[in-house]
Amino acid sequence: MSDPALNLNHASQVLSAPLRLDGGQSLDGVCLAYETCGRLNADKSNAILLFHALTMDQHVVSDHPKTGKPGWWQKSVGPGKVIDTNRFFVICVNVLGGCMGSTGPASIAADGRPWAMRFPVITIRDMVRAQVALLDAFGIDQVHAVVGGSMGGMQALSFAANWPERTRAALVIASTARHSAQNIAFHEVGRQAIMADPKWRGGDYHAGGKGPENGLAVARMAAHITYLSEAGLTDKFGRRLQDRTAKTFGFDADFQVESYLRHQGLSFTDRFDANSYLYITRAMDYFDLAEEHGGKLADAFAGSTARFCLISFDTDWLYPTAESRTIAHALNAAGAPVSFVELSAPFGHDSFLLDVPAQDRVIAGFLNQ
Amino acid sequence: MSDPALNLNHASQVLSAPLRLDGGQSLDGVCLAYETCGRLNADKSNAILLFHALTMDQHVVSDHPKTGKPGWWQKSVGPGKVIDTNRFFVICVNVLGGCMGSTGPASIAADGRPWAMRFPVITIRDMVRAQVALLDAFGIDQVHAVVGGSMGGMQALSFAANWPERTRAALVIASTARHSAQNIAFHEVGRQAIMADPKWRGGDYHAGGKGPENGLAVARMAAHITYLSEAGLTDKFGRRLQDRTAKTFGFDADFQVESYLRHQGLSFTDRFDANSYLYITRAMDYFDLAEEHGGKLADAFAGSTARFCLISFDTDWLYPTAESRTIAHALNAAGAPVSFVELSAPFGHDSFLLDVPAQDRVIAGFLNQ
Repeated sequence: MSDPALNLNHASQVLSAPLRLDGGQSLDGVCLAYETCGRLNADKSNAILLFHALTMDQHVVSDHPKTGKPGWWQKSVGPGKVIDTNRFFVICVNVLGGCMGSTGPASIAADGRPWAMRFPVITIRDMVRAQVALLDAFGIDQVHAVVGGSMGGMQALSFAANWPERTRAALVIASTARHSAQNIAFHEVGRQAIMADPKWRGGDYHAGGKGPENGLAVARMAAHITYLSEAGLTDKFGRRLQDRTAKTFGFDADFQVESYLRHQGLSFTDRFDANSYLYITRAMDYFDLAEEHGGKLADAFAGSTARFCLISFDTDWLYPTAESRTIAHALNAAGAPVSFVELSAPFGHDSFLLDVPAQDRVIAGFLNQ
Repeated sequence: MSDPALNLNHASQVLSAPLRLDGGQSLDGVCLAYETCGRLNADKSNAILLFHALTMDQHVVSDHPKTGKPGWWQKSVGPGKVIDTNRFFVICVNVLGGCMGSTGPASIAADGRPWAMRFPVITIRDMVRAQVALLDAFGIDQVHAVVGGSMGGMQALSFAANWPERTRAALVIASTARHSAQNIAFHEVGRQAIMADPKWRGGDYHAGGKGPENGLAVARMAAHITYLSEAGLTDKFGRRLQDRTAKTFGFDADFQVESYLRHQGLSFTDRFDANSYLYITRAMDYFDLAEEHGGKLADAFAGSTARFCLISFDTDWLYPTAESRTIAHALNAAGAPVSFVELSAPFGHDSFLLDVPAQDRVIAGFLNQ
């Protein structure tokens, strides 16, 4: 990560104006923490605003400061990579409501105490509005493209719909224009798991001691299953036992998949704030781009002149191909240029983060036009 | 339910011999609580052993004593119904490990205290072995058919494979011959939710006060999503709001699907024991009929002379059609007579409990041969 060619930069910016929120409130002194990679050119025309997914953050290229693991899209972003930072200036911002430096429920409110559950409920559009303000601070009038997978794709859609003049292209991967009943249901299970943990204490766990780690771990476990395909889980684990030759007839993690899930749950609690999880999942559940635009999805894109590219994965059952197709039809109806491809990959929803060469070709082809 | 034509009977039976368990232990004085409907004929040849699913019990026809709701297959079992009790004597037994009268972790052990987590881990075959002993007590050498959906189907398969001379037919609905990694994963989330609840207290919550109701409710919520199809949830709830005209920008159950899930979770805790949930899900996760028979599923049915009927549902993603197809292929390889049909129904896994006329025709046709 010391490669000077990366031009890697971490910083944070306090927005100069109060941020108006969809819920009616406004937030003063919003701080946004971000990572940039590459160099902004002289006419500020080569920026790509990359949005992260629910449980990620701004550490796209750099190793994660808490886990030490590689950035979540290190394989795709960098000099000569699919998103080529020799050409583009990539910005990724920890979302509003997050817990990696941007203002969220763990931040300190005006009274000197953490916001906790007094933090206003935010929307995907609020997250994007904050990032548009950051572009203003950078003096970037228009980005080359907005790019995101999963919740990042929701932000890309929201950006293109609500700030159409601010981007020339939008790349939306494994995403949806609205959260389905099943999507909401899985998130609600996670929220109830957190809120049922006595250590959550109505959200006021920041003062000391452990937060609702057990509840957050259960939430993460439930969500994690939705990120993987049934076939992918079977390939990876099947019914194989964990470090033993026979079932123990007990409640230990006999099966590898149990051990894996428990690890996913526990390790998540080391790097994520439980209240942030509540607020960000709520924002995703509230997301319904058509509803924001009078109920007709095509109307959301009426003012757009951007090019669109949609990618879905055949094994993604969280945001299945039908969701991307709905967006493609709406873009067609709005007369927007759109290419849409369903890729075959065995990894389920998480395919967008993994090694899928066909995805690389689509992304590079779209961004380099 | 006072209809004398039903010949409805509730009773329980203590097994005279110790019950040998797959885990190596044996259990003395096992009690099985059951419901029967119809009359056993003189040569005891008209019995149907009906197995219940994970969260059901012996109340097939009778209203549930705790919830007051109709029995879980009241629509299908009774005089002149699909399983016609004018002809058949239907027996349904609360499974070993259950909490509605049969011996389980809430039962009192020899030392006068509840078994709790000292109860031995049981298997699907153990559940069936106990019920075979009950048939012995009834003097029933061979039943007309074994019938079950979901976990009930696993028991039907286990019965036909391990006690092939004891049934002439096996009807297996929406089930599987082994739990997949994804199936295990969802159960593990539920178990972790229960065990993370401080009121679980290592399983020793029976002494007084509330048990791990929050954890059990979260477990039920997560599982309940898997019983329904995405399209079914969308049809039933979509993104409709609950008793309000606009989002509240809070964490109340804004969406109907949230309210529904919370209700499902809470009401479950009124009728189900958390430790029973741990033991029964464990038994399901351990189920792998091929593994029990040397690794080849066809070998499980080598000794069988029974007729088989398999039903799957196109929207069931918990035990999808491919699982039934695997069983059908194994039965073909074993030379067993089998009919297999995938039915179209919008309700997901729960279709077998709901109004699917095509299912009625298949069941009646198979049982009345």
